[in-house]
Amino acid sequence: MIIVMKAGATKKEKDEVLKRIRELGYTPHVIHGTTRDVIGAIGDERGKLVLQTIEPMHGVESVVPILQPYKLASKEVMKESSIIRISDSVSIGGSKIVVMAGPCSVESEKQIIESAEAVKKAGADMLRGGAFKPRTSPYSFQGLEEEGLKLLAKAREITGLPFVTEVINPETADLVAEYADMLQIGARNSQNFALLKKVGQLRKPVLLKRGMAMTIQELLMSAEYILSEGNQSVILCERGIRTFETATRNTLDLAAVPVLRSKTHLPVVIDPSHATGNHHYVASMSLAAVAAGADGLIIEVHPDPEHASSDGPQSLKPAKFADLMEKMRRVAAAVDKTI
Amino acid sequence: MIIVMKAGATKKEKDEVLKRIRELGYTPHVIHGTTRDVIGAIGDERGKLVLQTIEPMHGVESVVPILQPYKLASKEVMKESSIIRISDSVSIGGSKIVVMAGPCSVESEKQIIESAEAVKKAGADMLRGGAFKPRTSPYSFQGLEEEGLKLLAKAREITGLPFVTEVINPETADLVAEYADMLQIGARNSQNFALLKKVGQLRKPVLLKRGMAMTIQELLMSAEYILSEGNQSVILCERGIRTFETATRNTLDLAAVPVLRSKTHLPVVIDPSHATGNHHYVASMSLAAVAAGADGLIIEVHPDPEHASSDGPQSLKPAKFADLMEKMRRVAAAVDKTI
Amino acid sequence: MIIVMKAGATKKEKDEVLKRIRELGYTPHVIHGTTRDVIGAIGDERGKLVLQTIEPMHGVESVVPILQPYKLASKEVMKESSIIRISDSVSIGGSKIVVMAGPCSVESEKQIIESAEAVKKAGADMLRGGAFKPRTSPYSFQGLEEEGLKLLAKAREITGLPFVTEVINPETADLVAEYADMLQIGARNSQNFALLKKVGQLRKPVLLKRGMAMTIQELLMSAEYILSEGNQSVILCERGIRTFETATRNTLDLAAVPVLRSKTHLPVVIDPSHATGNHHYVASMSLAAVAAGADGLIIEVHPDPEHASSDGPQSLKPAKFADLMEKMRRVAAAVDKTI
Amino acid sequence: MIIVMKAGATKKEKDEVLKRIRELGYTPHVIHGTTRDVIGAIGDERGKLVLQTIEPMHGVESVVPILQPYKLASKEVMKESSIIRISDSVSIGGSKIVVMAGPCSVESEKQIIESAEAVKKAGADMLRGGAFKPRTSPYSFQGLEEEGLKLLAKAREITGLPFVTEVINPETADLVAEYADMLQIGARNSQNFALLKKVGQLRKPVLLKRGMAMTIQELLMSAEYILSEGNQSVILCERGIRTFETATRNTLDLAAVPVLRSKTHLPVVIDPSHATGNHHYVASMSLAAVAAGADGLIIEVHPDPEHASSDGPQSLKPAKFADLMEKMRRVAAAVDKTI
Repeated sequence: MIIVMKAGATKKEKDEVLKRIRELGYTPHVIHGTTRDVIGAIGDERGKLVLQTIEPMHGVESVVPILQPYKLASKEVMKESSIIRISDSVSIGGSKIVVMAGPCSVESEKQIIESAEAVKKAGADMLRGGAFKPRTSPYSFQGLEEEGLKLLAKAREITGLPFVTEVINPETADLVAEYADMLQIGARNSQNFALLKKVGQLRKPVLLKRGMAMTIQELLMSAEYILSEGNQSVILCERGIRTFETATRNTLDLAAVPVLRSKTHLPVVIDPSHATGNHHYVASMSLAAVAAGADGLIIEVHPDPEHASSDGPQSLKPAKFADLMEKMRRVAAAVDKTI
Repeated sequence: MIIVMKAGATKKEKDEVLKRIRELGYTPHVIHGTTRDVIGAIGDERGKLVLQTIEPMHGVESVVPILQPYKLASKEVMKESSIIRISDSVSIGGSKIVVMAGPCSVESEKQIIESAEAVKKAGADMLRGGAFKPRTSPYSFQGLEEEGLKLLAKAREITGLPFVTEVINPETADLVAEYADMLQIGARNSQNFALLKKVGQLRKPVLLKRGMAMTIQELLMSAEYILSEGNQSVILCERGIRTFETATRNTLDLAAVPVLRSKTHLPVVIDPSHATGNHHYVASMSLAAVAAGADGLIIEVHPDPEHASSDGPQSLKPAKFADLMEKMRRVAAAVDKTI
Repeated sequence: MIIVMKAGATKKEKDEVLKRIRELGYTPHVIHGTTRDVIGAIGDERGKLVLQTIEPMHGVESVVPILQPYKLASKEVMKESSIIRISDSVSIGGSKIVVMAGPCSVESEKQIIESAEAVKKAGADMLRGGAFKPRTSPYSFQGLEEEGLKLLAKAREITGLPFVTEVINPETADLVAEYADMLQIGARNSQNFALLKKVGQLRKPVLLKRGMAMTIQELLMSAEYILSEGNQSVILCERGIRTFETATRNTLDLAAVPVLRSKTHLPVVIDPSHATGNHHYVASMSLAAVAAGADGLIIEVHPDPEHASSDGPQSLKPAKFADLMEKMRRVAAAVDKTI
Repeated sequence: MIIVMKAGATKKEKDEVLKRIRELGYTPHVIHGTTRDVIGAIGDERGKLVLQTIEPMHGVESVVPILQPYKLASKEVMKESSIIRISDSVSIGGSKIVVMAGPCSVESEKQIIESAEAVKKAGADMLRGGAFKPRTSPYSFQGLEEEGLKLLAKAREITGLPFVTEVINPETADLVAEYADMLQIGARNSQNFALLKKVGQLRKPVLLKRGMAMTIQELLMSAEYILSEGNQSVILCERGIRTFETATRNTLDLAAVPVLRSKTHLPVVIDPSHATGNHHYVASMSLAAVAAGADGLIIEVHPDPEHASSDGPQSLKPAKFADLMEKMRRVAAAVDKTI
């Protein structure tokens, strides 16, 4: 960590800062600059945010962290990309791009089975579908809950597709983990640390969605919560961040793919459906995600979007999805991957 | 809700939309415009987001909601401002501005008692302090948990100040409610709907913080979750939103005070400490909040910020806080309120 | 335009609004809703923002525009995509993706000729390079000005590549237009309406960059300024918007490609260099832009980025650029385009 | 400047960086950390952004600036707050808060004289009004231009109020300066460097508005452009930044007041009208600005907002403004200032 002193800091102020740095277990190293002094605090600062407490001291202008605050998620700790096993047939992180598809919510047996069969036929690797739904409005459809999990399991039995579904609560996490192949942490729970710890204790892969106002560094810190509890199977998901632009529901930060690639060994999945909120824009962003180097995609597909209980406007119909899969295959081949 | 048709929408497309509007229980009303048709869907749309499912239909350009999606939080339902009773001596929402002050985290008996006595002496109405801490890093101090609640209760016994403390988990909510006078939902849990429902079932006032990327409308929807479970004692708290500006930790959206005043009967509290993240800016924003018409303030005060376990840089020392209280009293008088 | 009345609006208030709508030249049409009235104002509202003046009237809750405020840029006016001719050999908007490449600033004859030859050899269609530089700091290098234009012209002579360069001032616009094949309006001047009008009067194609905080609708309004002065050759450029994320210099809003495709006939170019601000992320975003359907790319390439006068960190070296061109060609082929 | 090396940087890479630092005229100073080296580059870096060119070098992780890039605007250069003289009777920056009020645009002699008389009567110090209008739409009212300036001068003659009006173009800046007492640079031109240089060469005070996506540091850099051309009379104006929140037109970043106070000697003015875009919220934010310590306010007042050519929704009627002045006087007294 670097402590930048004020231009007019007194010797006494500097001495107090040096003393405090030593108290905290670091070795101070002073650089006398032209207009001010800068102090390097040497020592492993990961996991010790305490140096920040120097900021309110007299004579201190700012404290600049040098190391990233995450360890287990870092590429420095594990240089090779992680490949996360989901089932016997599906792993995320290699040259095969994994496509997860299905409706926003499980609504009925017919709807989820039809969806699963349609996305399977088009070539998807996994089924997605929500049983517990975190809805902005208390008056909106909140999901079929355990009944939804059972229907997802039935769809898996029929199609062979493993499924991912959201966990919204530490209390029901064990229940979801009994059924699901992968647990999803939604954007609104991306800093629900109690929930992150809970899924960190389970032995199921976790798809961690980036929060709407979450920096990439904070996403890695949330991953660190899960990893530090012992669960090494974390997949990161960019699903759009909130900006001033309203032409799309969120703004897809696709550059998160190469940025995360440079910082972490964890795989990265893109959700073009929530990012854009509009089915017209999903195909273009899916192809872009493949070209950008994403390890997977999670796409909303619904047999009848106009009658969907949630997220109809952003869901693709099966025929459109099949067409998109074909296009993605071509782009994947152009970047030496497969779908 | 207003459905805007595309300029070239066909008669068949319009008929489908009209049919669908009727199916959903609304009465359609067509306005033939110069370049396109616009259809009003008449009926109480609150709580029924289903009209949004018209958006993917052929010939539809956009769907514009007219009513706010919240009911119980709305000023239309309850015209007079709510006054929320916290204890025999403290209520929020009247002409007395309520000041809550204390450290970010409860760290020790000495620290919390000293803090409570200092803020009491300066004239604060309530004590604040975290026992369960939602920290970005799994390696940071996570709070004293139940031990912290006991120390807060002890500080209350000595000073007579009721206290507010954060709830981070449905599982521990009952425990917190046994001790606390007011439950805080933190910014990172502002859309943790499982937690909102849980505190909605308790009979303790709730201080609901706005999430970093939460619109004012979404804040009111989160309040609606609590209200709709039967808990009418909700206080809203603006604590800064996330923007591109990095000179402050967050950007205090002080205009939320008059905006919320025009939309809801619930009281509004400002948190200048988290909003700015820097103790140098807290006084200026506290005075501004009083002048803007806030019903209360929640301010971080620590007897020794340089050794605080969390949020040292934004905490005021007791002497500065006492000075600020004096200044706030003058500004409050200038807007016909008291502190 | 739709005028939403307040729930308790009086008859007198409604009559005043109806009167005002008629005064402004529109025909009012009232829909009596369950809880409030909504009034449609029929008439061509494009170019007349005056209906907004109804917003402060008593009894009015909000005014919702229905039509987009642009005309000439709109797809409704011109259904087919525009193909903009830059030179005998280069046009933007067809199935050939146009690549413009070169250094941020023209620094010397050697540097610009070397750059031009390198990007030509790799297969670029146009040269880019700044002669007039809009720099955040008055102390930074401000460009070689006319001397820079001459060097760009020399590079064109040698390589045959047409060039694009920035115009920063109405006063020097004619001078730049004498030399350049395409005029660039930079992000910081994207709402410098005096400059937009000026280039609208010139007969040179204009590359209009999106401002850092500009919505897609505002970008189209700025294009409208140029188009309405008579210059039909406008190419839009997404170069990243400003958000809370600091891992990249800006956030590339790649979804702007399909969004603009649905709203306008004008071609869309992506600038991955300014969007990311980091040469490590440029290749990934370039490939994504091609897959997303962009009509062109503008990429910074410098023979010696470590000694560049500006934007070194985001410039590719010629060898990396040649490698990227090869990869882009493969992705282009996968989406039935050529580079 | 601090150069952070990668964890595995080689000796050769470090040597290259040290060599380059010396070439650029700085003295390198290496700190050997636990996991990586950090190099301080000693020398006055203000005005020399060239150290950034080290960022693309091999083995470099990041380059962290230590000094602010502005000089003349900095409090380090001039410790006392500047007081800017506008006319014989008006100065900005002392304990008297300066209120500028008037319509968005000058529309007619009657309108501007009535406005001037009304704001004078209520106690405003200066008149505001636009003659050259930068409008988002080319079809909107663009201002009365020189005729508007003459009407403003006439209003000044009658009321004695000096006036501020916007300059939108270097070409017409001299003309505006002939009439106006203070030149306004609008938010959309806040990084129109050609215009900043031009007004830097004039001898009239400049009210520099913050751009919608401009950081506080960039605002100070734009001020530096004006100051470095020799014009020392710069007043900064916060008028709302663009965020995801749409309940207000922009988000007023009121914390800019104490932040700017800590960094610069230049006075700070708040524009609550553009910040909120809604006359209902103007009074609350005006009182807050006074309490926060602003040196002045610029408020839109129109005798007939419902018929205004621009910005009607955010304009106060004269009676409301007079009432607000009265309230602001009370708050000003509470913070030991006058209005």
